[in-house]
Amino acid sequence: MHLEIPESLELDSNLDLNQDEFDKVVLSRRSVRSYTSDAVPESIIQHCLELALLSPSSSNLQPWEFHWVRNSELKKQLAEFCYSQPSAKTASDLIVCVARTKTWSSHLDHLVKVLKSQPGVSESAIRYHQIELPNMLAQGIFGLKGHLRSLKYRLKGIRKVQARRPGGPSDLLLWAVKSTTLAIQTFILAVRAHGYDTCPMEGFDEVRVSRLLKLPSDAHIVMVVSVGKRAINGVYGKRTRLEKERFIKQY
Amino acid sequence: MHLEIPESLELDSNLDLNQDEFDKVVLSRRSVRSYTSDAVPESIIQHCLELALLSPSSSNLQPWEFHWVRNSELKKQLAEFCYSQPSAKTASDLIVCVARTKTWSSHLDHLVKVLKSQPGVSESAIRYHQIELPNMLAQGIFGLKGHLRSLKYRLKGIRKVQARRPGGPSDLLLWAVKSTTLAIQTFILAVRAHGYDTCPMEGFDEVRVSRLLKLPSDAHIVMVVSVGKRAINGVYGKRTRLEKERFIKQY
Repeated sequence: MHLEIPESLELDSNLDLNQDEFDKVVLSRRSVRSYTSDAVPESIIQHCLELALLSPSSSNLQPWEFHWVRNSELKKQLAEFCYSQPSAKTASDLIVCVARTKTWSSHLDHLVKVLKSQPGVSESAIRYHQIELPNMLAQGIFGLKGHLRSLKYRLKGIRKVQARRPGGPSDLLLWAVKSTTLAIQTFILAVRAHGYDTCPMEGFDEVRVSRLLKLPSDAHIVMVVSVGKRAINGVYGKRTRLEKERFIKQY
Repeated sequence: MHLEIPESLELDSNLDLNQDEFDKVVLSRRSVRSYTSDAVPESIIQHCLELALLSPSSSNLQPWEFHWVRNSELKKQLAEFCYSQPSAKTASDLIVCVARTKTWSSHLDHLVKVLKSQPGVSESAIRYHQIELPNMLAQGIFGLKGHLRSLKYRLKGIRKVQARRPGGPSDLLLWAVKSTTLAIQTFILAVRAHGYDTCPMEGFDEVRVSRLLKLPSDAHIVMVVSVGKRAINGVYGKRTRLEKERFIKQY
């Protein structure tokens, strides 16, 4: 099993991809409610989390965190905070997926340093990262800066094409949650591709989970993802989807 | 090329999956800022959108919609509303990815019908869908029901493990955005697996895009995803990620 991620973190786009293999991953993925007692190899979860970190994020600010609970005592407690649902109780591992609304600033410092070290990066790219991005995300005391920005956007938007978000703190939360959720789905599919299963859970007591993991105040728990080996009858019923015409609209 | 999705929408979990093929998809995906003039075959985009619809969603309520803009006049207008960024201007297709906060109720009616038609579904599963879920999501006039629920959760949560969200309207928006974003990432990876590229964009004028597509009032545009064939120099620089130890915490 190749669990190494290439040094360059990148592969050529012209490589020969086997799309059937990808489709099989999506088609065989189900939310699993009950796992066998098999432990998922640590290297596989680490690898899938590292793949998740290669997901796109807004302005590459990577506002995500993955709190991976393997310790059995802590896992038991965490499963109780997920209402003791079987998917949590029987899981080999639980991943608390967190969106952070305040890490962007230090991440941005890092990105600016990297940009400046690269040859041929334009002044406008540097400016975007150093000046514009902080102006687009900063909240100020009580979110005042964010709320004012929201108002300014609304006024400017009357006459011309205008960004609308993120304005205030609830927009910033939405912003962080979106990028984090992209990474969660990469993780979910990666685990399936590597022969194991997951269930993304939104049923948990976020206050108690935060306290348990001592999460900082700007951490928002997006989902808790359970990981394990699918048990017989681990999936509830056949897959049900409404007709696709409801969801795909062509113009 | 197999663009059919199997009738059953499902594949056995014990199939032989080639994890290297999945890894190649993730490793070769980059946000593409400039595309060639090649059109992406309609069948491929349709197929990738259908794969996206197989993503998990909260209580399977599928609050997503994909507004696929192919018409060149409309696409041109939409690209302007994405600040005329090259990724939008040069794209073969643009997908406006939308989260809906009010479709859950009719979707739920459908799911209840399906559940009742299946043998061996427990009374408690029916009850969860018919009684509990509507009580967990309904907002009432001015979101009053939602805000009251939020308060109730907080009070009950003092003494015991308790759900905290969704409470009011902003939580319901977050709820719909999360499921939609899972599906967006499936789409992004699917397009890569099928030999094409994407860029998820959060830079757009949501008011003007909503008006252009005549979206209903409960539609929130999560992202606009551009699709096309990667041009030479279509990617800006090498992939940059902060060190993984920042994001993966083990307990």
